[in-house]
Amino acid sequence: MAETTTDRRGIYIGDKPLMSYVTAVVMQLTSQNSDRTTIKGRGKFISKAVDVAEVVRERFLKDKASLGEIRIGSGEFTNREGRQVRVSTIEIDLVRKA
Amino acid sequence: MAETTTDRRGIYIGDKPLMSYVTAVVMQLTSQNSDRTTIKGRGKFISKAVDVAEVVRERFLKDKASLGEIRIGSGEFTNREGRQVRVSTIEIDLVRKA
Repeated sequence: MAETTTDRRGIYIGDKPLMSYVTAVVMQLTSQNSDRTTIKGRGKFISKAVDVAEVVRERFLKDKASLGEIRIGSGEFTNREGRQVRVSTIEIDLVRKA
Repeated sequence: MAETTTDRRGIYIGDKPLMSYVTAVVMQLTSQNSDRTTIKGRGKFISKAVDVAEVVRERFLKDKASLGEIRIGSGEFTNREGRQVRVSTIEIDLVRKA
């Protein structure tokens, strides 16, 4: 019923430069049809996911976005040698302030 | 007044092998005088801090410890060239189950 729809697909952090992800998050949080987003990272990209959240919150959307829930967990993936490997994950919710 | 004192000094994640930190966290959570601990990481060690929390929780203290609050933030430090640099931080609370 709400006019603002919630987009929880989220943004996956990978090999691109930090600012690519910062820009994507800022665009999503300032667009008309989304008042929140989730930054998702796995393994070594977890540190970068936190960087993206902090740069958005401290530099670009100060007073305009706030941290929501932060979740950590474990996933599994098959590596090049065909073995199942545990990998840590993080999800950081950022919410546009009213 | 409580017989179990709370230790919130926490364990800082750095260059040592993952299992050093896992062992330290498990020891703290299973000792008589501490029912919680905080895993702390900065910069590139944030991913490792999440790994430590997940390995403790999933492998060593399954059903015996649970995730508490997860906090992220930013700090500043002076690098080798004498410049102030922003660095992300994480703090993960782990709590012994009753």
